[in-house]
Amino acid sequence: MVKSTPRTGITAAVLVVGSFDEFARRQNEARGKIVLFDAPFVSYGETVRYRGSAASTAAKAGAVAALIRSVASNSMQNPHTGAMFYDSTVARVPAAALSVEDAMMLHRMSDRGQKVIVTLKMTARTLPDAPSRNAVAEVIGSEKPDEIIVLGGHIDSWDVGQGAMDDGGGSVAAWEAVRLIKQLGLKPRRTVRVVLWTNEENGSRGALGYRDSHAAELDKHVMAMESDNGVFKPLGYRISGSDSAIAVAHDIASLLSSIGASSVAAGGSEADVEPLLERGVPAISLAVEGTRYFWYHHSEADTMDKLNPRDMAECVALMAVMAYVVADMPGTLGRATAR
Amino acid sequence: MVKSTPRTGITAAVLVVGSFDEFARRQNEARGKIVLFDAPFVSYGETVRYRGSAASTAAKAGAVAALIRSVASNSMQNPHTGAMFYDSTVARVPAAALSVEDAMMLHRMSDRGQKVIVTLKMTARTLPDAPSRNAVAEVIGSEKPDEIIVLGGHIDSWDVGQGAMDDGGGSVAAWEAVRLIKQLGLKPRRTVRVVLWTNEENGSRGALGYRDSHAAELDKHVMAMESDNGVFKPLGYRISGSDSAIAVAHDIASLLSSIGASSVAAGGSEADVEPLLERGVPAISLAVEGTRYFWYHHSEADTMDKLNPRDMAECVALMAVMAYVVADMPGTLGRATAR
Repeated sequence: MVKSTPRTGITAAVLVVGSFDEFARRQNEARGKIVLFDAPFVSYGETVRYRGSAASTAAKAGAVAALIRSVASNSMQNPHTGAMFYDSTVARVPAAALSVEDAMMLHRMSDRGQKVIVTLKMTARTLPDAPSRNAVAEVIGSEKPDEIIVLGGHIDSWDVGQGAMDDGGGSVAAWEAVRLIKQLGLKPRRTVRVVLWTNEENGSRGALGYRDSHAAELDKHVMAMESDNGVFKPLGYRISGSDSAIAVAHDIASLLSSIGASSVAAGGSEADVEPLLERGVPAISLAVEGTRYFWYHHSEADTMDKLNPRDMAECVALMAVMAYVVADMPGTLGRATAR
Repeated sequence: MVKSTPRTGITAAVLVVGSFDEFARRQNEARGKIVLFDAPFVSYGETVRYRGSAASTAAKAGAVAALIRSVASNSMQNPHTGAMFYDSTVARVPAAALSVEDAMMLHRMSDRGQKVIVTLKMTARTLPDAPSRNAVAEVIGSEKPDEIIVLGGHIDSWDVGQGAMDDGGGSVAAWEAVRLIKQLGLKPRRTVRVVLWTNEENGSRGALGYRDSHAAELDKHVMAMESDNGVFKPLGYRISGSDSAIAVAHDIASLLSSIGASSVAAGGSEADVEPLLERGVPAISLAVEGTRYFWYHHSEADTMDKLNPRDMAECVALMAVMAYVVADMPGTLGRATAR
């Protein structure tokens, strides 16, 4: 766990760079300064590297703090927070995310030769670990209760906004899917288990705890499914599994053709099911209309009003259909390639 | 001018209503409370009524303050400010705009029976008037220098954001159009005058000052054009004028077909040219792609980065083409119906 010391009132000149490459060329200018990495959003996977390692990258060159442009695909002055990591070999310097607008403004000021001075006041700190629990519910299988379909989302979020998209909506969709199976009186052959994983945002502790607590039954886990891309209009599924599992997923997805959600693509892992996939459990996620997720993600704008009830109902349908069919079909999806 | 007294620390229960109609039915519940008008955005013209008159509507029923849902077509926790008006017959109570998200949240809380208490701390106040000036530049007409084409935007904005869309971009587009006419060595028959009107946001004082200072030459004003809907992809023009003026506007707009900006629609008045239209001057505005204007308008998100250089260049083209052709064509657009 990160143990950063609260720092208040660091005042220093700002070195603004647009990328790690530019910083590599200019790092001799960084000593004693605050470095702002004003990197445009390309994709989350590509751009989140700045949030992850800006601090240690800057500190290696003698900087006293790091700032980043928020990792966001659109902005209305809402800064986006999130996980970052310290390299244990260099000083731990404070790091913060600016709104896209403010980062771009400082970059423009710097480009036209203005000296940019920033006073950084932060009180963020990491508290000692405290107990937290996953929430679990099941419909016990009628024939093979020891074979398990697990589905869920994570119930924590960053301390901004309400975590409606990340991942309150996904948690509710998974819970609701299992509630529907029960309400409809369905008795699938296998057990359907919904898990709301705790503490995904700060190291997937709930997911790792689940994996370890259930280590003995992981070879009986037939499928693990998570919704963690926001509750938007679903387009279909993503799957990480064997060729035969993909073929079955196509068959099941065809049941959703009436709502236009029959697509099946590769890459079904999300943070909380990744530890299960690593043990060979086929992983499935929802493919959703993705335009707006990184507008809201990890910001004050991730609020309840962003959830569209129709989109939510369709996401529930996708989770319920996949969970029920896989729980009730004669065979399994086979194992995914353990990684 | 509004002279409101700063009020701090009003703490009261909140009555949440969704519309003026609902408030009319429930106004006997308002005494001593803060009234929140959580009205969904329909259109600016329709919904801005809440910002304009929430305070006096609430005060008439004995409320101690009014809140509104920000008048915005999208929100990422950015509150939107703007003009409001007091009815001189009732007490002046404080009024403020909440973000869309927070207004909806209080509404949900109220709907489920929670008592909502708000402490309102505001320091807004209206200072005495102070001198301010319109900025004016001209290309003097080569044959009819006393006949004037005026175009512009307004250089003030609300005290949030940078006023990039409202109306910095429009001001720069108009200025740039005239600069281009000069740079290209064009010598139109009539005078082309760019005006950056001051203080549109708080009563169109610059526009009224222009009208009054130039009262003697208003019958020589051939056209008045303003960009005040943001600098987005232009689609064409809007015009308020005679049928023959509309026909000419169609001819001129056809010059923009290569960039898809040849449309001509009714309704060309904007705030700063409205006083001129009232005196019979044909009014033209830019019709632009309108999805996002009320995302940013009067909020901290109205910043430079929202301006797309290509869209800006096209808006400049529309203003330059219309201004130059009307300034150089043999006849005039005729008078608009004085109102």
